[in-house]
Amino acid sequence: MESAIPDHLKTARTRHPRVGDDYVPPYPAFVARHKPSVARVVMAYFGLQFLAADEQAASAPLEQAVTAFKAEDGPGHWDRARYTDEAGYETIITIAYWDDPARFDSWFASYGAAWAGEDKTNVPFGFFTEILRPSITRYETLFSSAGRMEGIAVVADGLSDMVQEHAYWGGMRDRIPLSQTSDMAPAGSPQATGANGYLRVVPHENLCLIRSGQDWTDTDASERQLYLDDVEPVLRVGMDFLRDEGLSCGCFASRYMRVVGADGKSVEKSFGMSWWKSLSALERWAESHPTHVAIFGAAMKYLMALGPSAKLRLYHEVTVAAADEQFFEYRNCHPKTGMLRAV
Amino acid sequence: MESAIPDHLKTARTRHPRVGDDYVPPYPAFVARHKPSVARVVMAYFGLQFLAADEQAASAPLEQAVTAFKAEDGPGHWDRARYTDEAGYETIITIAYWDDPARFDSWFASYGAAWAGEDKTNVPFGFFTEILRPSITRYETLFSSAGRMEGIAVVADGLSDMVQEHAYWGGMRDRIPLSQTSDMAPAGSPQATGANGYLRVVPHENLCLIRSGQDWTDTDASERQLYLDDVEPVLRVGMDFLRDEGLSCGCFASRYMRVVGADGKSVEKSFGMSWWKSLSALERWAESHPTHVAIFGAAMKYLMALGPSAKLRLYHEVTVAAADEQFFEYRNCHPKTGMLRAV
Repeated sequence: MESAIPDHLKTARTRHPRVGDDYVPPYPAFVARHKPSVARVVMAYFGLQFLAADEQAASAPLEQAVTAFKAEDGPGHWDRARYTDEAGYETIITIAYWDDPARFDSWFASYGAAWAGEDKTNVPFGFFTEILRPSITRYETLFSSAGRMEGIAVVADGLSDMVQEHAYWGGMRDRIPLSQTSDMAPAGSPQATGANGYLRVVPHENLCLIRSGQDWTDTDASERQLYLDDVEPVLRVGMDFLRDEGLSCGCFASRYMRVVGADGKSVEKSFGMSWWKSLSALERWAESHPTHVAIFGAAMKYLMALGPSAKLRLYHEVTVAAADEQFFEYRNCHPKTGMLRAV
Repeated sequence: MESAIPDHLKTARTRHPRVGDDYVPPYPAFVARHKPSVARVVMAYFGLQFLAADEQAASAPLEQAVTAFKAEDGPGHWDRARYTDEAGYETIITIAYWDDPARFDSWFASYGAAWAGEDKTNVPFGFFTEILRPSITRYETLFSSAGRMEGIAVVADGLSDMVQEHAYWGGMRDRIPLSQTSDMAPAGSPQATGANGYLRVVPHENLCLIRSGQDWTDTDASERQLYLDDVEPVLRVGMDFLRDEGLSCGCFASRYMRVVGADGKSVEKSFGMSWWKSLSALERWAESHPTHVAIFGAAMKYLMALGPSAKLRLYHEVTVAAADEQFFEYRNCHPKTGMLRAV
């Protein structure tokens, strides 16, 4: 067992972790490990928003994005997911990851900035770009099992051994290296700027992003049914709550998305991604809101029933971003898209 | 809203509370307040253990205890509860509270020490005495509503206004004044000493005691039914787990007890009282063990359904005791009684 915080990111603490040195988690979990040379990563969400009637036309920008990713300095990993948003718009987001911000900057200038940054004429789409480029000290990952990485972890160097800081409330915070010295409290509130169908969001300090996913690819028929019948509906209620009423508890925007493959068809993976006023707001919802207590209870019942034989894979990545590590722009999007809901 | 830690017990912190200054709990709760002159309290559990066939004979020592409490320097408050223990013994515990350890010492020397300290001949009972005398900095209380005190709070000066440190995991710890400067980690492990039917337990540092109760006296018929049908059975499963398998998660002994009135008959109040290796062990069970997650879920569902109209009263008191604040003795008790299970 090892600490989720790698040795080279350990600092003299001014704040304590929530559990003692003797804490032993009741089941294993793992975190992504980067090479010590990696100081900053980039998580870029390129969104396309359209009405169902325009589905066919959407393939052009989606294909352009794929082509762009193959260019020099393109992402180390990307994937794509979709959902229908609260206003009824189809939304396909292509998510790309880099572990070198210089390469990202180079790529973005040539291929990425145009996505939502350039004016579009005569296309029935909204475009948005939501980017975090956190210091390595400002995010954490967690995986329930080894063997198949997701998200930022795909561009990491590998996976840790079993880590200590999980399976208790507060583990998420304790896995973020910056928690050794900072409470990561939010400061300020997001503001919008722009006009004529182009808006940017001027962010605030210590905004929080979570991407939390499940992969039932490997489940056999009975486990799949248990997941789809007993867990997924409870998860959906919680995700619906965050999408529709999340502002009441500090969740600016939430998307419960289904991962799609290269052919655009759904695969057996989903995730929720949500923007939060702060890590604390996310903690409070997760720990005490009835919708997440129900999710936690359903997941626990499921995992207790299956034990180590469970083939469901769970993972998440959580970032607390400084204001200057955030970038949001929305073009031709409806006025409650993503972080626009927060302003 | 105010801090659960009264001003006169605030110290320069070396450890942070789990929530920020801006945290606002989603519903009210209150804590007991002592006069600043109170530096230490006493919680004394006088247990009587017998087989059901000897019930009638049990009335004599129970009456003697009541008489003794009326003597000079007797407790400021006492109550009584019973349960059938895991070995099948009836157990009646009379619990007495003082807010002045000098008065307790005086009373105990004259009237209390004999309870389990003196040899008994020809009585079919076991006697045990379990006492904590914590510094005021080493315990906390919590009440869901004002108006009817229980336990140590009855000898307090009154109740606080709504407090900030509750309704999140870690609130219990944050309400204990000593948490400002100590992690309250356990040190050592309990040892037994004695022979010939008289055993004492030599305690370890930072043992933890919780008494956590519910009072459905004021509920109307429909709320009472909801509590008894939907909450109590889930609570009982958790209490049974702690009683029978608690050692697996650091719970030395657990008693799920029904309060009895002056006539010995049950009233509409119950509580769990349990001895724990540490506050951390209690935290981990409460936060993540399936049995308590189920209790938490059932209680939350109940309180969500009823809203502010709920008449169920909930309270608890939690102490983390230094080794020299503990006293345990067992006479003629079966070998797994109370803290004897821990050694």
